[in-house]
This record gives sequence, structure tokens and C-alpha cells, in this order.
Amino acid sequence: MSLTDSSMEAIRTMLYPEGVAVVGSVSPGKLGEVISHRLLGAGYQNVYNVNPKAAGVDGKAGFRMVSEIPDPVDLCIFVCPAATVPDMVRDAGRKGVKSAVVISSGFSEAGHPELEQELQKAAAESGIRYVGPNCAGILNTACGLIATLEVAPRPGRVSLLSQSGAFGGTFMDAANAAGMGMGKFLSYGNGSDLNDTALLEYLSRDPDTDVICMYLENVKGGRRFMKALTEAVSRKPVLVIKSGRTENGARAAQSHTGAMAGSDRVYDAVFSRCGAVRAETFEEMIDLAKGLAASVHAVRLGRRVGILTNSGGPGVLTSDRCSDLGLEVPMPEKQLKEDLSSILPSFAGLANPIDVTVEGTPALYQQCLERMLDDYDAAIVIYVGTPYLKALPYAEAVVAARQSRNKPVAVYFAVGSDIEEAKAYLGAHDVPCYPSGERAASGISAALSRTGAAPAAAAGNAAEAFVPFPYEKGHGALLEPEAMGVLDSLGIGTPKHLVAHSPEEAAAAAESIGFPVCMKIVSRDILHKSDVGGVRLGVASREQAEQTFRELEKVCAGKDFSGVILYPMLKKGTEVILGMIRDATFGPVCLFGLGGIFTEILKDVGMMPAPLDKADADRLIRSIRTLPLLTGARGGAACDLESLADMIAKLSNLMDRYPEIREVDLNPVICYPDGALVADARMILGS
Amino acid sequence: MSLTDSSMEAIRTMLYPEGVAVVGSVSPGKLGEVISHRLLGAGYQNVYNVNPKAAGVDGKAGFRMVSEIPDPVDLCIFVCPAATVPDMVRDAGRKGVKSAVVISSGFSEAGHPELEQELQKAAAESGIRYVGPNCAGILNTACGLIATLEVAPRPGRVSLLSQSGAFGGTFMDAANAAGMGMGKFLSYGNGSDLNDTALLEYLSRDPDTDVICMYLENVKGGRRFMKALTEAVSRKPVLVIKSGRTENGARAAQSHTGAMAGSDRVYDAVFSRCGAVRAETFEEMIDLAKGLAASVHAVRLGRRVGILTNSGGPGVLTSDRCSDLGLEVPMPEKQLKEDLSSILPSFAGLANPIDVTVEGTPALYQQCLERMLDDYDAAIVIYVGTPYLKALPYAEAVVAARQSRNKPVAVYFAVGSDIEEAKAYLGAHDVPCYPSGERAASGISAALSRTGAAPAAAAGNAAEAFVPFPYEKGHGALLEPEAMGVLDSLGIGTPKHLVAHSPEEAAAAAESIGFPVCMKIVSRDILHKSDVGGVRLGVASREQAEQTFRELEKVCAGKDFSGVILYPMLKKGTEVILGMIRDATFGPVCLFGLGGIFTEILKDVGMMPAPLDKADADRLIRSIRTLPLLTGARGGAACDLESLADMIAKLSNLMDRYPEIREVDLNPVICYPDGALVADARMILGS
Repeated sequence: MSLTDSSMEAIRTMLYPEGVAVVGSVSPGKLGEVISHRLLGAGYQNVYNVNPKAAGVDGKAGFRMVSEIPDPVDLCIFVCPAATVPDMVRDAGRKGVKSAVVISSGFSEAGHPELEQELQKAAAESGIRYVGPNCAGILNTACGLIATLEVAPRPGRVSLLSQSGAFGGTFMDAANAAGMGMGKFLSYGNGSDLNDTALLEYLSRDPDTDVICMYLENVKGGRRFMKALTEAVSRKPVLVIKSGRTENGARAAQSHTGAMAGSDRVYDAVFSRCGAVRAETFEEMIDLAKGLAASVHAVRLGRRVGILTNSGGPGVLTSDRCSDLGLEVPMPEKQLKEDLSSILPSFAGLANPIDVTVEGTPALYQQCLERMLDDYDAAIVIYVGTPYLKALPYAEAVVAARQSRNKPVAVYFAVGSDIEEAKAYLGAHDVPCYPSGERAASGISAALSRTGAAPAAAAGNAAEAFVPFPYEKGHGALLEPEAMGVLDSLGIGTPKHLVAHSPEEAAAAAESIGFPVCMKIVSRDILHKSDVGGVRLGVASREQAEQTFRELEKVCAGKDFSGVILYPMLKKGTEVILGMIRDATFGPVCLFGLGGIFTEILKDVGMMPAPLDKADADRLIRSIRTLPLLTGARGGAACDLESLADMIAKLSNLMDRYPEIREVDLNPVICYPDGALVADARMILGS
Repeated sequence: MSLTDSSMEAIRTMLYPEGVAVVGSVSPGKLGEVISHRLLGAGYQNVYNVNPKAAGVDGKAGFRMVSEIPDPVDLCIFVCPAATVPDMVRDAGRKGVKSAVVISSGFSEAGHPELEQELQKAAAESGIRYVGPNCAGILNTACGLIATLEVAPRPGRVSLLSQSGAFGGTFMDAANAAGMGMGKFLSYGNGSDLNDTALLEYLSRDPDTDVICMYLENVKGGRRFMKALTEAVSRKPVLVIKSGRTENGARAAQSHTGAMAGSDRVYDAVFSRCGAVRAETFEEMIDLAKGLAASVHAVRLGRRVGILTNSGGPGVLTSDRCSDLGLEVPMPEKQLKEDLSSILPSFAGLANPIDVTVEGTPALYQQCLERMLDDYDAAIVIYVGTPYLKALPYAEAVVAARQSRNKPVAVYFAVGSDIEEAKAYLGAHDVPCYPSGERAASGISAALSRTGAAPAAAAGNAAEAFVPFPYEKGHGALLEPEAMGVLDSLGIGTPKHLVAHSPEEAAAAAESIGFPVCMKIVSRDILHKSDVGGVRLGVASREQAEQTFRELEKVCAGKDFSGVILYPMLKKGTEVILGMIRDATFGPVCLFGLGGIFTEILKDVGMMPAPLDKADADRLIRSIRTLPLLTGARGGAACDLESLADMIAKLSNLMDRYPEIREVDLNPVICYPDGALVADARMILGS
């Protein structure tokens, strides 16, 4: 059994336990008392209390140790003081317990890493897998397991994985208010055993979970997490909130978890690469999750949305929002228009939105919606009632149409003497209700986002034979000829380049390259060659090459002089920058952009975690706003994007192959209609 | 008494009427019946029903005509068939009624403009001012006037002006759910008498309204509306939703109102110029309005926000959102940190957010919040409780601190056995509650946005003497020398320019300008001169000038040839574009941007309605993303922005002075460190 299989088994046991021991005080108001009563109240019979006084709740017997419990115990919930947890874990191990939830705090988050290490050791030696410590517990609505202090949601098939316990509470509270049911809630606090990656792997295989929501403050083991996320997305939609987006937020996140948040733009690139959808607020996440959960079994084809309304203003706002979200709101085609006009009274609006006006009856809603769903891929239905009329008949009409056509429908229902009843009826029949037409548009957009095939898995690190790093360690940066040599070894297009160590060699090299040439100093001490006059262009003869060599040597007087590198003069083309950085969390990341003002002032840079295949590289190239400058806008020549993509894909392997390299900057790369050449290269080595 | 005074008086009468006549059927479920009962239910005694059957409600007497009512009537509400409205209006006029609400539909929106004209005529002749027809009525919570079918809100000091009736219903429904009280609701439907501008003028002077919310689909009389909006913003905050932002939305808006929506970017420029805040959804508008309404009497100084929380995750997300909104979330200063650490237990987080953790008591919340408000300009308080504990003591603590310091406070309170009671208590004491910390941040941002002085009023159209248009009508476009002449007359910097009609004149002109010169053809038939070889650069001698003239004349063979214009060769500088368009709704609008890719591909263009003074023009210049290219980024020379602003301000008067001009394009204008010159100018005349 692999390590992964063992964690999967432990998490399953944790979420569907037969016997549960609650380790901690059961005095009124104490966590042990509250959790025991929540478990018992939700129907769990086999709840055992463990504490020094051997006190039970509701007159039941208690125990001093887990090992004293005569019946089987699958899960221990620790709410006892931190210092006592390791010993109690060992005792539970002796009893044969396999899983634990450590809610107790007072470990590394409170300045006691040694206690957390002791817990890890005790659990490992006892064969116990756990979430926590310092977590908010877990919850599984499918079996009434409420091992948390947070609000319990209604049963459903959306599950939440949260680094922050309080976030879980607020999310489930809002889910209740939004009428969204939930399956599992898993919080992991310090995450010193089972963490984001393991729990995500479990939820991605959990048959009772249709949609996964995650709240992250930071990620450890970025590459393994990416793999788990990519696999999860291939099975079901994953929505993510990553907090600490901004400098303020990141600071707040640090003080909360004591862990450095990775660069937010890298997180963006990772989520996008893995196909996870990033939400900014929990309301947005709930909107999207509702839309996805309600459409799991619906037919989803394209992004053409019909809007059915009985009021103009909200219809217009919804239409605006659909455009923002990239949904199409096309006018009805001829046949649809004819059919609708035979159903609807003359004053109805036959555009899209279809406006049945205040005269719209439930029967009209149903007929129109059914006919619209024949043509459109999904529908948003808006019903704005009056305080003295019933909304339920309209809800029934919408549900009937939704069921007869089985395409995604989301609604905004407002005002009515029975509006809550109507909304509950809709929600219970796979028609998610939203507090506005605009938010219904978000839900539909999410539902339709899963129409295509699941995104391709990120290319694994090719198991290439390890090529030893060719240059001695301790270099701050590779010299330009060394960097060019590394690029050559990757098969990346560099211009012909030769290094000369004497005037004569320079003349010979220049002749072999062909005049005119460009000459640059090679020196470990000089990083910015142009600034010191170390770059000479248009050297046109043997004599000039010799003379230039001598001058360049003088520039290096008193500094390292490792010769001169010679190139042909390159034709003018479009300049771009390729780069790579090594992110502390996710490892190598590729960057691409046009240079100069586009990068520095307009911040128009694309990012994608490495490695990339050519298709990925093409997506990276096409992600920048200034792409038209590469595709022939304003009469310019179109660049050879295929060669460029090939170069990026080859470069993307560099950092996995050479762990010594910390940063790469090919600036500029010159793109032509028939190829691309690296005109300058910097490679910085790790500290 | 001016026209404006008379509308103000009529609107006041309409909103605070003594006697109200409801003209229309009172059969059960009919509008007349429903509205009469709503009026009576809200405490209005003097409600009179008028209909052909002379039927009243609840056994009260009814009347056949308004003129038969023996008691005074201030307001008539028309819900009778459209065709009968004009006659009934005349009858009401005979009775001396001054104001009316025409809810009845069936006028121009239904293809009967003649009926609407008849209504206008009848009202004008009878001295009656009205809102409608085809509107959703009006409402004034201050006196229980519920002359609408829409949901009635709780009393408050936020008023809504809405072109769409249904929007009003959804907004008031959401306001109730959000715990926001409202003052007045005014809908105006077709707006054929009192419209957006008149009603806005009223609300801006209404002492019972602290915050104005508007929903617009389109605006008529854009310039007068802008004036009213600017004045309103100088008195109180104005929030606007303009629907039809996108192509889909605009199409939906058209089909709804039959009116063409103006270009959305112009609306953006207008709202920004007038100082109104644009919201995208009614939830956003309610969030902002709540924040503003609760802080009317609070001390508002800067944008430094303290966040007090008992849970990490929501605190981080709120901090992120504050950054997005441009709020500062600075760390506590030394003294504050010391004071807080003497109040708080050791495990509390002393950054910002201040995290009192789950151990935070009401007393701790109050002490911390008071001390934080001494240092910060406002606070966001987050309280995430547990389902079995009371939240009210925390609400009381927050209110006490808010009152003792009188600075804006917004809260996110979630979970508690008495959570609704706690939220109601907070809302009733000027502490607005939001469904998340992020949305509380929006509310605080709105509250703090009113700290500065009210924005300066838009410069009025200078009452200059009218300068007759110097060129004959019927031109499609001015010739380049004509356009340059117009610019000269405005005092805008053009390079020296001379027109030659013969080779000899060309040689003389070139000599007078100084070699080398640039020569361009002048022809009514050729718009794009470069495309036909009609532009010659670097003409260096008399002979070359003569020869070039002859060649350019040949280029025009068979077409109009009005000579050749000569300029000096201009020094290289930074090229920008100045333009003006005449918007159908708001009149002349100035555009500014860098040319080429920045305008065409990156769409980086600023807009501002004309006229502009120099300070306005400076703001326009500084509104583009590529501004650093003008201020010396990347070692370039900084441009003379003052000269540029002066040029824009002078240009901005052009279209008011010459109504014949439809479009102006100065492209490029070349900016130097010491001035700016127009290098090419196109002026298109109106159709």
C-alpha cells in the first residue's frame, strides 16, 4: 500500500467513523461538551468521552484513556490541552485508532514547534493520521458527523477544504443563507500531517463530492499540490480562494499563519495552469459552486444564454453582466422568434432578454423557457413579483421547463408573499437562486465553463537523464558565453558566437562570423556591459576587430577580463523577453512579454509554471495584451510564433535540469517572420 | 418664479400631498384598489377614488371625476386606461390639482406617441406637473405615501431615482434584506414631463435625503443633466447605475425604452467629471449607500483603516479588499501597539488586522475598537461567532465604541443564536452590517470617499461672443490649412505653415520657413495623403521645392488640387493624439492618448466632457496608463505637460464655438520638453 493509499484510507475512516472518542473536558461550554452534544444530536450513537475525570455527557459513562474504551474507535477528536495530546495519541494508537482530528491549539503557531514535532512523532509511531493541530475540525453531512464548532450546513454535494477554520464557519453560514447544501468540511490548521494536497486528493476521488471549494493562505510542496490540483480538476470543478493577494493581505496572512505567502501572480499562473477557478470572495465562490452543483447532470454545450424576464431594468443589467463574463446573449433566431410571438402577447419584448412584462403568467414562463432552452445552451430567468402575489407557481413553471429540457437554468426571484417557499422549491430542484440577475449570470457562466473536455494534465517533469551542470559552483552568474552554451545544449536558437582572448583571435573570429560584427566584453565583474562602454556594434574589418579588442580589454582594466564575445549584427525584428524564475513554493515559472515599456510600465507579462510543451508555450505567448504587435498589427511583419513557442518550451526544462540556476533572462530575443534568436542571455545561480 | 422653481414646488407637493385622488378601477386586484389600500394602510386618510362607477374602497364614497371631490386634492395617481388620461388630467386641472403620477401605460412606449403628446398638452394647459407615464409610481416613507406597487422599504435617508420601475422594486427589496432604510422612491418611466434632471435637482435639495441613488438607462438633455449632477454631488453623495454598459446590455436597453443608449465610455467620463460614483450592481450600490448614510455625521479625515477581528481568514480577505479599494491598512504605530498589548492577551495578533482570537470578549472588542479609532480614520469589525453563543453583547460593544469616537465603523457579524437581533441593533445605531468583511470594506471606502472638499463644479460654457464659422458649409472636412487656421485662432501651437499654389510660391515659402521643409498636398478629394504619396519630407532647396510642387500637383491629377502646404521639419518628440467628438447625449467630449499601438491596441485613451480648464486638462492627461512615457520614464525627456494642458483646454472650447464641427483629430501632436506643436489636424463637419 503506497503512502497515498494509506492517507486516503485514513481520511475515509476519519469522515465515516463508527466509533468516535472525544478527548477533552466535558464541563458545560467546553469544546468536549459542545462537540459531543453536536455528534449525539446529529444521530451518532458511539460517542465516547475521554478526560481525567472520566466524565461523560448526558449520564453516559466516560473514560480516563482511549485504550479503556471497550468498543471499537475509528476516530479521536482531541480538544484537550496541547501538552497532553502526544501521550493521548500514543494511547489511542495502542487501542488501534487510525485517524484523529487535533483541534487543540498551542503548538507551532503559538511558539511551540517542539510540541508539534512530538505530536508528529507520536502519530507516526502509532500509525495514526491526523488533521490539525490548531484546526477547526471536520464535518460530513452524509453521516451526521459534526466534529467542529462551526455552523453546520444542510446536506449537499459541495465540499470545502479550508486552511482557516473561521473561513469555514463564514462560508457554511453563507451557504445556508444562499440555500446551498454541502457535503464535507475539512480544516487542517497547521497541517503537520494531512494537508491541502492529501485532502484535495481525497475529495477529488470522493464519490459524494461534485464540486470542491478551497480556501488557502499558502501552500507547501507546491509541485505535488499542482499535480493533485490538476488531477482534481480533471474529475470535478475546483474553486479556490487564495488570500493574501495584496501586500496588506499578505502581511495579515503572515501574522496569521507565520508562513510566507508566495507571490500572488505565481498563484494566479498555477491556478490557471491547473484549470482551477479562482474566486475573490466567499460570496463569489458560493455563486459559482451553486451553479456548478446544480448542473452536474445537465446537458452543457456552448455559452449561448437566453434571458427570460418580466422586468426591463434587471434584464438589462443581467445582459451587461453576461457580456462581462464572456457569455453570448444572441438575439433569437427567426424560428424561435416566430414561435415565441405565437405564445406571447404583442407587447412582449422579443429580443434577448425576452420580456414577458408584468402580464407574464406561470404558463407563459414555462412555455417560453422550454422553447428558449431548445435554442440556447442555458437560461437565466428573472421574476420580479409584487408583495401581495404568490411566486411559487412561477417557480413550479421554471422547474418543469428545466426538467423537460435538462439544460442549466439559474434564476433571480424577488418579491412575493411566499418568496422564501418559492426559492426553496427552486433550489431543491437543481435551479439555483441568486440575489440578483447579475449573480445568476455568474452561476450560469460557471456551469457552462465545464462544457469542454477536461483540461490536459500539466506535462510531468520529463524523466530525462540528469545532465551534470557544466560550470563550477559559486559563480554569481554565468558568463555570457557560458549562458549561450547552455542554450545551445537545449537546442535554443542563438546567433553564431565565438569568444576571443587576443586581438588576433578576435580578427579571425570576426572573419569567420562575417562582417560587420558585434563585440562585447566577457567579465565576471561587470554585469551591465553597455553602461561601461563594453558593447561595440558594427565592427567592419579585421583591423577594427583587433583595435576594438584592445579597447575592450582596457575597459576591464583592474577587473576580471575573460575575453570578448563576437556575434553577427542581427537584423531588426520584434524584441521580446523570455525569463524564468524559481518560485519558493511552486518552483520554476516561465515569463514572457515584450520588452521595454510594455514590461516595465504596462506590466504586460504572462506567467506559466514550467515545464511547458509547445501548446502551453503558445497559450503563454497569446496571454499578453500586446500580442497584436507580434501578429502583424499596424502593418508590421507577423512573427514566427511557432519558433518562439518551441524556444519557450525548450527553455522551460532548464531549471529542472539545472537546480543551480535561480533566474534566467533572455533579453532581448529577436523575433523574425521565420525564426527567433536570443540576442543576450543572463543566468543567475542560486545563493 | 422660474421654471425650475415651479418643478421643485410641484415635486414637493407630489411627495407630501394632503389629499390624494386615485384615478382608476378599484375592483379587487386592480391597481387602483391595491394602491388605495396601501395608502390607507400607511395612514393616509384623505384618499379619494375616482372611476366611472364612482366606487370607493372599504365602503368609502367614490367619485366619477376629480373635480367632484369636495375636499382639497394635491396629487392625482392615474392607473386608468391610457386613452382616458388626458381628459382626466384636464378635469384634475379644473379642480386645481398641481401634481400627478401617471402609472398607466400605453403611450409612446407602446407605439402611441400622439397620446403622450396629448397628455403633455393637457398637463401643460392645466398647470399640472407629472411623472410618467408608464412609471412605477412614487413613495415617501417620511409621510407613509406608498403610491406604487413595488415593495415598500423601511424609513431612512437614502433616496432612489429610477428610470426602471422594476429596478426600484428589486432595489427596495434588497435594501430591506440589507437592513437599509430609505426616504423617497421616484420612478419616471417615459419621463415626458418631470425627468431625471428635475427629480435629481429636487433630491439634491431635499433635506430628508442624505444619499441619492439613481438607475439610468439613458439620459436626455445631457448638458443640463451634467449640471444638475454636479450640483447634487456638491451637496451629497450620488451613486449611479447606468445599464446598457455592454453591447448586449445596450441592445436590451434599446428594446426596453426605445431610446438609443449613449456610448458607455462617455457616460463613464461624465460621471467621473461630475463626481458621481458609478456602481455596477444594486448590491454594490446598497453597500456603498449604507456606508455613506451611516457616516453622514461622523468625523472623516483620511483613508487609514483599522481592522478588528476574532478570526484570521476573514481578516486577511478583508485586508486584501481594502487594498483593492485604495484604502490604507497601516500597521499600528508604537504607542497604539503598546496600549493594545496592555489590553489584549498575549496570543492576540497585534498587526492590522488586530486579531483578538476566539477568546475576545465584548469588553475587549470595545476597548480595542475605541483605542484603534483614536489612531485610524475608520474601522472594520469582524465578529464570527458560534451557533450557540449570543452576538448582541458584541454588537453593543461596537456601538458604544462607535458612539464614543464618532468615526465610521462597518461590520461583518456572522453566526450567533441571536444574530439577526445583533445586526438590527448595529444598523439602528449607524453601524452598517455587511454579508462579508470584503463588502464592509466597500462601505467604509464609500464613507471615507467624502472626506475631501466637494469637487469643483464643471466649468460653465464661457459666455463668449459668438465667432462666426469662417468656412463655407457643406464641406465634409476642413482642408488642412483651414484646420490649422482654426487652431491658430484658438491660440493653439501650430508650426509655421504656408500654402503655395505654384512652384515659385513653394520655393519662396520654403525659403521663408527655412530648409529643410515638409510639403503636403491640399485637396478636398484626398483624405489620406500619405497613402497616395502626397507627403514629402526633408525638402532641402528652392529647386527641390519647385520640383516637389510639380510632382505633388501630378499626384492630384483629375482631383481637386488646392495647393501645397509647407511646414518646417519638426524635431523628434513624443507623439500624442488630441481629439474631440460630439456625443449625441452629452455634446463635446475631449479625448487624449498616446498614438499608435497605445490607442489602437491597448485602448489607452482618456475622455472628459468639454469644456476643460487647465486643471481639468491636466487630470485628463494624467488619466492614461502610459503617462510615464510623457514624464521621462526609461531615460526619455519629460514632456512639457503644462503646454499640453493649455493646448487641450483651448481646444476644448472649439466645438461649443463652432457647432458645425463634428469631430476633431490632432494626430500627432508632438510634445517637447518646452512646448508642443500640432503636426497634423483633421476637422470633420457635421452632417
